[in-house]
Amino acid sequence: MEVSSISSNAYSQVRHTTEGLTETLSAEDMVVQSMADASPVKWHLGHTTWFFETFILQKFASDYRRFNDTFPFIFNSYYESAGERHPRPRRGVLTRPSMQQVMDYRRYVDEHMMAVLDRASSELMSLVTVGLHHEMQHQELLLTDVLHLFSQNPLLPAVMEAPHREAQMAGASLKWTLNEGGVVSVGAEASGFSYDCEGPLHTVLLHPFRLANRLTTNGEWQEFMADGGYKNPLYWLSDGWDYCQRNSWFAPLYWQQKDGGWFQFGLDGLQPINKHAPVCHVSFYEADAFARWAGKRLPREHELEVCVQDEVVFGNLLGERCWRPQAATGANENVAQLYGDVWEWTQSAYSPYPKFSPEQGALGEYNGKFMANQFVLKGGSCITPKAQMRSSYRNFFYPHQRWQFMGLRLAEDI
Amino acid sequence: MEVSSISSNAYSQVRHTTEGLTETLSAEDMVVQSMADASPVKWHLGHTTWFFETFILQKFASDYRRFNDTFPFIFNSYYESAGERHPRPRRGVLTRPSMQQVMDYRRYVDEHMMAVLDRASSELMSLVTVGLHHEMQHQELLLTDVLHLFSQNPLLPAVMEAPHREAQMAGASLKWTLNEGGVVSVGAEASGFSYDCEGPLHTVLLHPFRLANRLTTNGEWQEFMADGGYKNPLYWLSDGWDYCQRNSWFAPLYWQQKDGGWFQFGLDGLQPINKHAPVCHVSFYEADAFARWAGKRLPREHELEVCVQDEVVFGNLLGERCWRPQAATGANENVAQLYGDVWEWTQSAYSPYPKFSPEQGALGEYNGKFMANQFVLKGGSCITPKAQMRSSYRNFFYPHQRWQFMGLRLAEDI
Amino acid sequence: MEVSSISSNAYSQVRHTTEGLTETLSAEDMVVQSMADASPVKWHLGHTTWFFETFILQKFASDYRRFNDTFPFIFNSYYESAGERHPRPRRGVLTRPSMQQVMDYRRYVDEHMMAVLDRASSELMSLVTVGLHHEMQHQELLLTDVLHLFSQNPLLPAVMEAPHREAQMAGASLKWTLNEGGVVSVGAEASGFSYDCEGPLHTVLLHPFRLANRLTTNGEWQEFMADGGYKNPLYWLSDGWDYCQRNSWFAPLYWQQKDGGWFQFGLDGLQPINKHAPVCHVSFYEADAFARWAGKRLPREHELEVCVQDEVVFGNLLGERCWRPQAATGANENVAQLYGDVWEWTQSAYSPYPKFSPEQGALGEYNGKFMANQFVLKGGSCITPKAQMRSSYRNFFYPHQRWQFMGLRLAEDI
Amino acid sequence: MEVSSISSNAYSQVRHTTEGLTETLSAEDMVVQSMADASPVKWHLGHTTWFFETFILQKFASDYRRFNDTFPFIFNSYYESAGERHPRPRRGVLTRPSMQQVMDYRRYVDEHMMAVLDRASSELMSLVTVGLHHEMQHQELLLTDVLHLFSQNPLLPAVMEAPHREAQMAGASLKWTLNEGGVVSVGAEASGFSYDCEGPLHTVLLHPFRLANRLTTNGEWQEFMADGGYKNPLYWLSDGWDYCQRNSWFAPLYWQQKDGGWFQFGLDGLQPINKHAPVCHVSFYEADAFARWAGKRLPREHELEVCVQDEVVFGNLLGERCWRPQAATGANENVAQLYGDVWEWTQSAYSPYPKFSPEQGALGEYNGKFMANQFVLKGGSCITPKAQMRSSYRNFFYPHQRWQFMGLRLAEDI
Repeated sequence: MEVSSISSNAYSQVRHTTEGLTETLSAEDMVVQSMADASPVKWHLGHTTWFFETFILQKFASDYRRFNDTFPFIFNSYYESAGERHPRPRRGVLTRPSMQQVMDYRRYVDEHMMAVLDRASSELMSLVTVGLHHEMQHQELLLTDVLHLFSQNPLLPAVMEAPHREAQMAGASLKWTLNEGGVVSVGAEASGFSYDCEGPLHTVLLHPFRLANRLTTNGEWQEFMADGGYKNPLYWLSDGWDYCQRNSWFAPLYWQQKDGGWFQFGLDGLQPINKHAPVCHVSFYEADAFARWAGKRLPREHELEVCVQDEVVFGNLLGERCWRPQAATGANENVAQLYGDVWEWTQSAYSPYPKFSPEQGALGEYNGKFMANQFVLKGGSCITPKAQMRSSYRNFFYPHQRWQFMGLRLAEDI
Repeated sequence: MEVSSISSNAYSQVRHTTEGLTETLSAEDMVVQSMADASPVKWHLGHTTWFFETFILQKFASDYRRFNDTFPFIFNSYYESAGERHPRPRRGVLTRPSMQQVMDYRRYVDEHMMAVLDRASSELMSLVTVGLHHEMQHQELLLTDVLHLFSQNPLLPAVMEAPHREAQMAGASLKWTLNEGGVVSVGAEASGFSYDCEGPLHTVLLHPFRLANRLTTNGEWQEFMADGGYKNPLYWLSDGWDYCQRNSWFAPLYWQQKDGGWFQFGLDGLQPINKHAPVCHVSFYEADAFARWAGKRLPREHELEVCVQDEVVFGNLLGERCWRPQAATGANENVAQLYGDVWEWTQSAYSPYPKFSPEQGALGEYNGKFMANQFVLKGGSCITPKAQMRSSYRNFFYPHQRWQFMGLRLAEDI
Repeated sequence: MEVSSISSNAYSQVRHTTEGLTETLSAEDMVVQSMADASPVKWHLGHTTWFFETFILQKFASDYRRFNDTFPFIFNSYYESAGERHPRPRRGVLTRPSMQQVMDYRRYVDEHMMAVLDRASSELMSLVTVGLHHEMQHQELLLTDVLHLFSQNPLLPAVMEAPHREAQMAGASLKWTLNEGGVVSVGAEASGFSYDCEGPLHTVLLHPFRLANRLTTNGEWQEFMADGGYKNPLYWLSDGWDYCQRNSWFAPLYWQQKDGGWFQFGLDGLQPINKHAPVCHVSFYEADAFARWAGKRLPREHELEVCVQDEVVFGNLLGERCWRPQAATGANENVAQLYGDVWEWTQSAYSPYPKFSPEQGALGEYNGKFMANQFVLKGGSCITPKAQMRSSYRNFFYPHQRWQFMGLRLAEDI
Repeated sequence: MEVSSISSNAYSQVRHTTEGLTETLSAEDMVVQSMADASPVKWHLGHTTWFFETFILQKFASDYRRFNDTFPFIFNSYYESAGERHPRPRRGVLTRPSMQQVMDYRRYVDEHMMAVLDRASSELMSLVTVGLHHEMQHQELLLTDVLHLFSQNPLLPAVMEAPHREAQMAGASLKWTLNEGGVVSVGAEASGFSYDCEGPLHTVLLHPFRLANRLTTNGEWQEFMADGGYKNPLYWLSDGWDYCQRNSWFAPLYWQQKDGGWFQFGLDGLQPINKHAPVCHVSFYEADAFARWAGKRLPREHELEVCVQDEVVFGNLLGERCWRPQAATGANENVAQLYGDVWEWTQSAYSPYPKFSPEQGALGEYNGKFMANQFVLKGGSCITPKAQMRSSYRNFFYPHQRWQFMGLRLAEDI
């Protein structure tokens, strides 16, 4: 979505997509917060709206009056520059404003945005673009968070109806693709939309490496488990082993054994494991332990980035409405699944690029202040909007987190 | 409500009263849990229904089929004998079953109960009575818990509309009534309904004492605060002082300062402090510190009990729909407010009476297993159903808890 | 030890006894704190000395100069009235003052005390008596705390040499002694030494009861364990079951299985369980669960008190230097082991007596401020100094604590 | 210390140096553990000895018998491959073995090592070298840990006597040195001693940067404080701000205000702040916030590394026995203080180098398993042994830790 391409049409489409994702949810489903890391769906719907109101309408719409004076306090996420806010772990107590009021808020802001979009300057258009990308991020988060909530419900309700899927077929066999490395350009170009943390475009020196042609599968993960993967500290980073033991990890998140087989809970409910499909909902610690067990390593972020710099975005992304990562098909000789299915953990700490310079103002808090203790993930997942993806995109999470749609691809030195 | 008096009418009335208390609440309001001590309103509605289903319909209604096989897991509170259950602090994740399904559950159980009530044995009638008293307890808890939830909402919404109240008038002045004590009978008679922990009827030896003619007021509490009550450890029990400091207590729960005055949030929203009204939402630790500051002490449970043994139940109870404790009126020479307004903390640990014998079966877990670390409270509050009250009733809470409608009356030795 | 009987001799004897108990310990053993509930031995030695310095020398010895101006901060335990103090859980960081300096401190204070004792008023003598009883309490605590420390050491070192003991003989069989109860006097007389919490002498009404003729034994406890005592929530108080599970209790403290048999670590090291000896190091929660399993109950504090009101103090107390509770001998028809062996848990919450009035000044904090959440124990243990014991003595601990020498005797209603 | 240069002389010298650092400490001082991150001095003395026993004597000394069979359990730090071990946070309960026994253990192992050193193979010599470098690391840790312990003592005892120091003179003024960057070699050469994490030697691409000619000073830090450095979230990383607030940070560790001035506790006791000396005991979070406040950034690890690749090791290191970081002298135009004074935080996460391969066996756990969540520090401090330093040395700590001698130097992009 280039800045030049934004129209009121594009705006409406993104906003409607968000709401469409909540169609199967009741007001009750949307108010509850299942853990401090997650937010209620209703909060996501309000927060994304607050974003347009605060960074655009308040500044660019003359005579704009806030929909409700308490909402900035309620729907500010973490912007210190934008004032005081309701504490994150308490978002789940907000039974008021009601779902209906939040929908009214959305309508109210949408109307005013329409008026603004008609006569938008390029500065403003650039902010609208940020707002839409921000909303797309929350489309994904909203699904991730409601999945976590439903996973804790003894009724194990499905969020989405499972699409018809083919019977399990043999997936692509594991092959290795060589990359010679060298001094390469990475990061985002100044033209086109990107977040500040993706820039500036700069050169890095990559040493030769090989990359697996597909993601690590559930079947391979089961071999790791069968070989004592969750019981042998020698595969694990020290912090990872400590976390694994304190939390009694024994399998990826949402896995459970039933009637002698393994199942994983997902947006389409509890389903049997497809051993050819990519493993999903594993932490960095687990992914790293798996790689060590396999005698390989996780890729560096730029190793993955250079492999997709010339590719069009294509894969099992949100638009497919598939709701689960899918097996790589066998025929393809190239490196597959670089976009979609699961976010791929890298061994790269999330750090500022040379000459990194945060956005001015409150948006400078969007990315930069999180540059410690987190790792970069690349490529998007089966619930990432396609328009959000590009080769320079850097997602980041703490190494113990696994409620996102996260998996891995192996790499090795030469 | 004597066993003999139960009719399908009485049953319906209690059940409808419960639902009536939720009229102003949305499904969103009823699903959220604001802390581990509190439960969602929806859960209260389901749990009381499960109680009738489990202890009556399952045993006495031939061919009864459970409404839903997962509900016992979801709506069992703490009965180990009744099987596994959903962990208490996670009750708030149950967005499913929906509010509508829980109401359907209530209707389903009510219908089957009606059939049973027509041909009830005395054993069954006795269980129905327990079930109705149990439901009345949850009427109070439901309001207490939703008050806690709303108190955390920046919008400070009122649960109930405030009734018209007279302007603040001078309340009753503090006087002391002598009781000579002696060997007296306390506890519940075998006839009539009571919980197991209220019996058996037995004798205790009381030493002479004096009792304040009314509850401690907000005005008196403000004097305590002004005199450094929350800052001087010498007024406090050691555990209380520790708790007070760790939680930064500075006033009763729900008090806040605004525009130079003190307000307390309640079911009718944020209202200015009435200094003649009883102080409410104070813990045992605070009540005990206040009494030491005042040079008095808290009453023992039986000191309060003997004072009401011959009184009819009368006072600011739930039926008044007053929603707040009210000032004692000035004329009365007798000991006032013995029922209603606020539960009165006593210095009596909640312990078994001589020859205490728990109910048989799962209902034996109702009271007996909580007989450690808690203190007895007497008299009921402005949200306690009148039919639930009697002189032998023993309520119990931990000394740090204050989200119930709790206050105190002073006593002294002679 | 009556007030009139204090001489410089008595003073010296108590002080020397304390030091004698540390003979086998190194300076290293005496500086470490093994948990927040326990204190280092060195701290006990300094604190008891500070007590004499602060409450006697500072007030009664003209021209007395403190040994060191930092010591009041370091050695004040919990007396808010006596000023700021080093936080309890950090007592173990005090490698300075050195053990030698603390011994010098003891000598310095002892010398000044000698001068004072020569010309003591009765007010002062009364304080000296408190000081000596206080020191005796710390003799016991010092041993309890060093036992806990050594129990955590993989080398399992013994504090004391085990005395020669007879082979295990059949202990006394379990019998029940009837007490008719009635209105009886309990508490301490005004004459003679006692702590404020033991008074005043007053009447209570006891209902008839039976008391076991001896303490519950290790053998009986093993039956409880074999019958699933630690696995069945129905035996336990709710708080107790919760604590038991969170702490993975499976046996009394210091028990371990080795070579197919059970051992208990004690002051004389790791020794095989003597099944006729009293069970030791069990919490109130465990004792209460055992009693429920056995179909009995724990005694009330005054039930035990009236049984020893006319008895001379006699039993396996500190002076025996036996270091472990011993089996009751078989011949005796009377109620045995009322003093010594283990402190006996009662079902009585530690509460103020009618007309209880704390000591004036800082000593008013000695007992009164702990009157919540704790239970009374009676009778002393194998490491309690004999001079400290009397029928009215009330010890108190939290229901989860078990590092003291604690056990139980069963009772039943008639 | 090249492998070829090890003699029994070198061995003895390192071992004696360790013991020399403890000369002013009592056995009491050496047994206590002040926090989970720190270890008792006695444990350091035993652990370094266990290292030689386990990795050398057990494998290379025929007929060697362990000094004590429990010591491996007690003195193993974190080597999963070397078996079970005493939990780290409980090292402080080990009053036994006594200090004397640990010194005997040292003598015993030293004697056997002497015999081995006479006829050492190169494989063995390489292990001895690791053992000596390991011991040097613990010389530094031992001082760091005892400083933390003493800082918690109200007596504020000094570990070392303060050397005579010149009066505060104006330090070097802040200047910037340009480095053109480019493709440069970093990491350790295969020859000479280095830890596995320093290799292999490889190329990286550095972009042009400027480096401050000296460390950030206490005076500059006071400007940061005066400008609200600890109160403005906009200077801080999100995790850092959270940590800062929860721990009420207001200044570097060990700083306190007294008589209107600032002091910092150190090995030489409580001393007034020298504003020209480098700031010490600041966390990564604080250093990073300072840099953002100053409009600069922290250096990358290789930016610092390339600046010292051709320098001899020189600076305020342990051998100077200065015990505190010292002001840079004014005359020098070059980049000063690259070695010694304080470890310099970098913005580089501690990650594996390309083709990193851990040591074989248990020593493979020495470094590699810590490669998450930590940041690299360079250059050594005033208590780092000189022989331990080299340009490729990578120290690493968590971003919240500040009890090491840690500070910073500013850098900037061009």
